Amino acid sequence: MNHQLLKNKRGIIFGALNENSIAWKVAERAYEEGASIVLTNTPIALRAGEINKLSEKTNSKIIPADATSIEDLKTLFTEAQNQLNGKIDFVLHSIGMSPNIRKERAYSDLDYNFLNKTLDISAISFHKMLQVAYQQDAIAENGSILALTYIAAQRSYEGYSDMANAKAMLESICRSFGMLYGEKNGVRINTISQSPTKTTAGQGIGGFDLFFDFADKMSPLGNASADECADYCIMMFSDYTRKVTMQNLYHDGGYSTTGMSQKLIEQYQKSVK
Amino acid sequence: MNHQLLKNKRGIIFGALNENSIAWKVAERAYEEGASIVLTNTPIALRAGEINKLSEKTNSKIIPADATSIEDLKTLFTEAQNQLNGKIDFVLHSIGMSPNIRKERAYSDLDYNFLNKTLDISAISFHKMLQVAYQQDAIAENGSILALTYIAAQRSYEGYSDMANAKAMLESICRSFGMLYGEKNGVRINTISQSPTKTTAGQGIGGFDLFFDFADKMSPLGNASADECADYCIMMFSDYTRKVTMQNLYHDGGYSTTGMSQKLIEQYQKSVK
Amino acid sequence: MNHQLLKNKRGIIFGALNENSIAWKVAERAYEEGASIVLTNTPIALRAGEINKLSEKTNSKIIPADATSIEDLKTLFTEAQNQLNGKIDFVLHSIGMSPNIRKERAYSDLDYNFLNKTLDISAISFHKMLQVAYQQDAIAENGSILALTYIAAQRSYEGYSDMANAKAMLESICRSFGMLYGEKNGVRINTISQSPTKTTAGQGIGGFDLFFDFADKMSPLGNASADECADYCIMMFSDYTRKVTMQNLYHDGGYSTTGMSQKLIEQYQKSVK
Amino acid sequence: MNHQLLKNKRGIIFGALNENSIAWKVAERAYEEGASIVLTNTPIALRAGEINKLSEKTNSKIIPADATSIEDLKTLFTEAQNQLNGKIDFVLHSIGMSPNIRKERAYSDLDYNFLNKTLDISAISFHKMLQVAYQQDAIAENGSILALTYIAAQRSYEGYSDMANAKAMLESICRSFGMLYGEKNGVRINTISQSPTKTTAGQGIGGFDLFFDFADKMSPLGNASADECADYCIMMFSDYTRKVTMQNLYHDGGYSTTGMSQKLIEQYQKSVK
Repeated sequence: MNHQLLKNKRGIIFGALNENSIAWKVAERAYEEGASIVLTNTPIALRAGEINKLSEKTNSKIIPADATSIEDLKTLFTEAQNQLNGKIDFVLHSIGMSPNIRKERAYSDLDYNFLNKTLDISAISFHKMLQVAYQQDAIAENGSILALTYIAAQRSYEGYSDMANAKAMLESICRSFGMLYGEKNGVRINTISQSPTKTTAGQGIGGFDLFFDFADKMSPLGNASADECADYCIMMFSDYTRKVTMQNLYHDGGYSTTGMSQKLIEQYQKSVK
Repeated sequence: MNHQLLKNKRGIIFGALNENSIAWKVAERAYEEGASIVLTNTPIALRAGEINKLSEKTNSKIIPADATSIEDLKTLFTEAQNQLNGKIDFVLHSIGMSPNIRKERAYSDLDYNFLNKTLDISAISFHKMLQVAYQQDAIAENGSILALTYIAAQRSYEGYSDMANAKAMLESICRSFGMLYGEKNGVRINTISQSPTKTTAGQGIGGFDLFFDFADKMSPLGNASADECADYCIMMFSDYTRKVTMQNLYHDGGYSTTGMSQKLIEQYQKSVK
Repeated sequence: MNHQLLKNKRGIIFGALNENSIAWKVAERAYEEGASIVLTNTPIALRAGEINKLSEKTNSKIIPADATSIEDLKTLFTEAQNQLNGKIDFVLHSIGMSPNIRKERAYSDLDYNFLNKTLDISAISFHKMLQVAYQQDAIAENGSILALTYIAAQRSYEGYSDMANAKAMLESICRSFGMLYGEKNGVRINTISQSPTKTTAGQGIGGFDLFFDFADKMSPLGNASADECADYCIMMFSDYTRKVTMQNLYHDGGYSTTGMSQKLIEQYQKSVK
Repeated sequence: MNHQLLKNKRGIIFGALNENSIAWKVAERAYEEGASIVLTNTPIALRAGEINKLSEKTNSKIIPADATSIEDLKTLFTEAQNQLNGKIDFVLHSIGMSPNIRKERAYSDLDYNFLNKTLDISAISFHKMLQVAYQQDAIAENGSILALTYIAAQRSYEGYSDMANAKAMLESICRSFGMLYGEKNGVRINTISQSPTKTTAGQGIGGFDLFFDFADKMSPLGNASADECADYCIMMFSDYTRKVTMQNLYHDGGYSTTGMSQKLIEQYQKSVK
């Protein structure tokens, strides 16, 4: 599928790690759809080296940046505009990490330095990115900015720990900055609340497989894949969605509005025999 | 803007009355984007005759149908499939009317026969349409069905009367049938909650102009127009959004998540001097 | 527990059928808490006769009324005010019935006459009750009106069929009339969204036991019982909650904001072995 | 109004500053309703000295604690249990402060050290309080914990700045810890989303008076006062609400579900003449 929806558009993609990453798929699809893009990730993530394949495939430059560093972000937006010869039309924020989850700290025994890192990496980085872009006036009129989130911002999930709180904050930043940037020059900011996805990040969550299966059965259309998420992001970056802003958009096969599907009843039935 | 997003797709558009109608714009845009469509409306609405212009412009057949009549809907779906040579890929439901509003009955003095009509025309018609399509197996795999709604389903507005209740029911039908049709063959069903729009229907609401202005100032991007709504519908009919279902999608310039914008403060300030 | 929270208050309780009914428990508790009440139900429901026990226990009069009949409702509110010597302080609407569910019609094969009955009995009756009370000016300043609802208004459940649509409409009526009645004389109107409950009505839903168990495990506090629901209703009728209105209040042990509890993971795990 | 709803209950009240504070009113009302309480605030806030009046009036001890300090919180919960002779039945968290707002930093020019403070004081303090209580097993079975919040967590307001993000995180912590603590021993955790209130904290928000007036006219019952909020807190601490958890409860006169009230239309009309 390719309709040149992003022809002549310039974008920055944060967070492509490897070919399972949603950000990776978005970069591929954005390129196919005619966009010129810049890839960015932390120096550590870049050292893993896989992103070079993506860079080649999408004919795009990699600009290293720690999304928690204002200095790095300033350099990134400046260089990206130089590289792409103009203001930025779209940005994807696909960044999240919780040291508390990695170190298996229970939610009732959080390390608060870790929590600060979770917030800084997973939520505040979005504000920093927006603030730097806003101050540089780096985003084109009617530009579109997306961040990826998860329904744990609305409902509690065993194992999602402080990442739930970070996602709630991320979605709130979307609304706060969305109002500001919308009033300034029509820039829209939204979050996409994606099904559990078999990415490196997703699989870091405890009991992921069971949980993936549960969500898949609950969702009338099944879980949305990373590829399908990329398609949805393309749509939100395109000019077909110029009055959608400050929204949290569920891309989840219907999970969020399903209480009990037929498939889940049948599965659950097996457990109570 | 034309990216042939609906190439080879077949659609039915309910509710185009005149060139201010959102359905009219959707029909025009769907045709531009490569779809083959059938137009439908009640015999009374058709007699006004303007729809013939749309029919010519979009090279589409008009099939009269009262959306509250099962018989008419059966004929419509049968004939539309014949006419378009295949199953239907997308449907737009843009139908609503309240005799209580037309006759200026207060919400505390509803006529219950009128209320039944409001519900039948504005909400139950959506279930009837879906039930007929489901029983005829008239919708193609991964088809996309939309209905237009308004935020009065969530919040109370002076003057919106029983239409608010009908819209709440409409959105509920979307979720109920969305689960069923999603499990059956991947058909997705969503509602788009549109800004107040200067259509014939919209302007029937009391105090519309004041209210339009209020919403426009509250919305960081301003109210979404009928043209922009049509673009959004095209996206939701396209293959870029195949895992979005059972959602109510705000297309409102950010109105729904704004509590107080700068523009509104400035305007409101004038009232308290 | 008895703190005379409703001392000197007058109430009307719709929908007590037998001692499993939530309305029955509310009547008992309201009486204990000092209220004077009138019981009402349809003549058919009254013929079953159990309500006489409740009438004796709560020293209350029974006034038969079909809640879909304006005439019956007018008589009811007039007589209740006479009987209780003053305007009504609180009302409970606990009424719902779907012929489509009773007759096991699939949601994709609804009988539309049945649907009209579902709506009339389960949702429109609430509007009729409010309209009659409003026109008679039958509710005291700062009165409190409640209707019972279920989360199927927000999420789809296999087996809940057209009752989901009726509940969505019921909740919308709460918001619409709540605005009107609040502006008039401070009357507040809310819905309580209760856990699945082992009442005669609840158990009419297909696969109820499995579903009850699922919800119980999902809810961190377990499902809320009918007795606990009655306590919550007392609170909402009391003067401690005078600025809460137009809300849908979840009384569900945390179900509505839980995505995956530990108890549910453990149960679900058994099904996938 | 006094029904001894909290007789034999022990509570801790965070955040009473002066007699305009909601926490102050809650302390007074809890005492009237029969509870034994401990008051706490930061050493700086205590030095202002007014809280001594409250301490005398409610016959309660003051235990200084910086709610961002784990050590202080440990001491607080230990001493409070000693002082009150048992586990704690209820806790009120009424704490919030944004250095970015105080220093009038625009939301597009946040100081990130200030943001960290906003989060630590206004949101993370709630987690710290809960974590300390959980680890000490300091809360009695079926205890009730409340935090005060504001609808800026859902909708954007000019002037509410990073406090909106902190409130979104606060509400998320309520859901996350509510699941955990509910599963452990039936402790329920909720937030109350209160109308704009003329407290010292509230009035720190820019343009507060205009905004207070707007909300008051939008709300069918008018804005809820601090006294009314205290009543609602009492109810949520009582045994009448034992299955309500993980909820954000609007106490706002209907503001949150009103789109346009009659009073607001009339006011707004004046601005457009």
